[in-house]
Amino acid sequence: MKDFELKLYVITDPLISRGRSHQEVVSRSLAGGARAIQLRDKGLSARELVEEGREILRLTRRTRATLIINDRVDVALALEAEGVHLGEEDLPLPLARKIAGPDLIIGATVRSPEKALWAQENGADYLGAGAVFPSFSKDSAPVIGLDTLREIVKAVSIPVVAIGGINLSNLSQVMDTGVKGAALISSVIGAEDIEGEAEKFSSAINRKLL
Amino acid sequence: MKDFELKLYVITDPLISRGRSHQEVVSRSLAGGARAIQLRDKGLSARELVEEGREILRLTRRTRATLIINDRVDVALALEAEGVHLGEEDLPLPLARKIAGPDLIIGATVRSPEKALWAQENGADYLGAGAVFPSFSKDSAPVIGLDTLREIVKAVSIPVVAIGGINLSNLSQVMDTGVKGAALISSVIGAEDIEGEAEKFSSAINRKLL
Repeated sequence: MKDFELKLYVITDPLISRGRSHQEVVSRSLAGGARAIQLRDKGLSARELVEEGREILRLTRRTRATLIINDRVDVALALEAEGVHLGEEDLPLPLARKIAGPDLIIGATVRSPEKALWAQENGADYLGAGAVFPSFSKDSAPVIGLDTLREIVKAVSIPVVAIGGINLSNLSQVMDTGVKGAALISSVIGAEDIEGEAEKFSSAINRKLL
Repeated sequence: MKDFELKLYVITDPLISRGRSHQEVVSRSLAGGARAIQLRDKGLSARELVEEGREILRLTRRTRATLIINDRVDVALALEAEGVHLGEEDLPLPLARKIAGPDLIIGATVRSPEKALWAQENGADYLGAGAVFPSFSKDSAPVIGLDTLREIVKAVSIPVVAIGGINLSNLSQVMDTGVKGAALISSVIGAEDIEGEAEKFSSAINRKLL
């Protein structure tokens, strides 16, 4: 199994970050303790994603955080980023693993224990499970709740990160399911003080993982 | 140098093909003599592109035509399509070649002899040069004209395919520049009778290449 951290996993979204650049969002998230960053911006061309990713990789490498590229296996490989995250509309896992080789970290979005097991058996290194709760940034995603999240964690041996509607009030319950981290979008990158909010989440996550 | 044909090179575009599916457009283009197909649809997810590409690959393999995927190196590799075409907003050529390995055909869009030479030296197997004339389907592309097209052909040893505003009246002049084929979009896939139009273009191109 590959050695990487999830813990506080921050996902970028140009529509939520109040006009601040990806680099600023990532820099402040890392300063607040984020250990994994997912660069996600469907509006960027491959070339722009490579240019943006290069700058962000400089930031994540300083703190030895994990950089995951959303959707594009080719861009992740070109950048030599640590990984790629595949949603349900992205490349099928077995094909992605075939072209990515053994070293690239591949994450997959799952909503059920069955799908989680399938993903583990077909090349995923970690899972993003959710939406755990209704959320602002992914309001169309079906909500799976804490019980299904716990079943997903039990079904697999690879790490699971929870996503969707996580806040400082429900974080403790989320971490009690056995996940290795929490993926945050709006609660962190939509905040006025990104670093301060990231610090609250990362401290709480790290306490639960002790 | 890799062995593949350009000749009549048809590019799909869901906005121009009058509601006909990619499969129908490709099937009729091949029946009319197209020897290369570029699957281009920026609106499809990676997963949809893989599903569509699989069906189209069944069609192109029957006639031993070349299937080129627009933009996404990962999808081209996943499908085991013959190649990928990279525009100016897509992955930089040296990175694309690095991750694609030596066998995938890589095409690149160029507008000058200098850029053509650079592309040849950085991993391109063929060039798409244009827009040769003002065109309906790429109306924002700068027009380079026949003289620049001829200079591009002279600057490189890899095959060049002309693109942009090519019709049955100017095709002969275009082929006289030394290109190995012509890329057609609206004149073929926007036609009522795709097969009939493809047949007119492919016959004229093949006559010039004798």
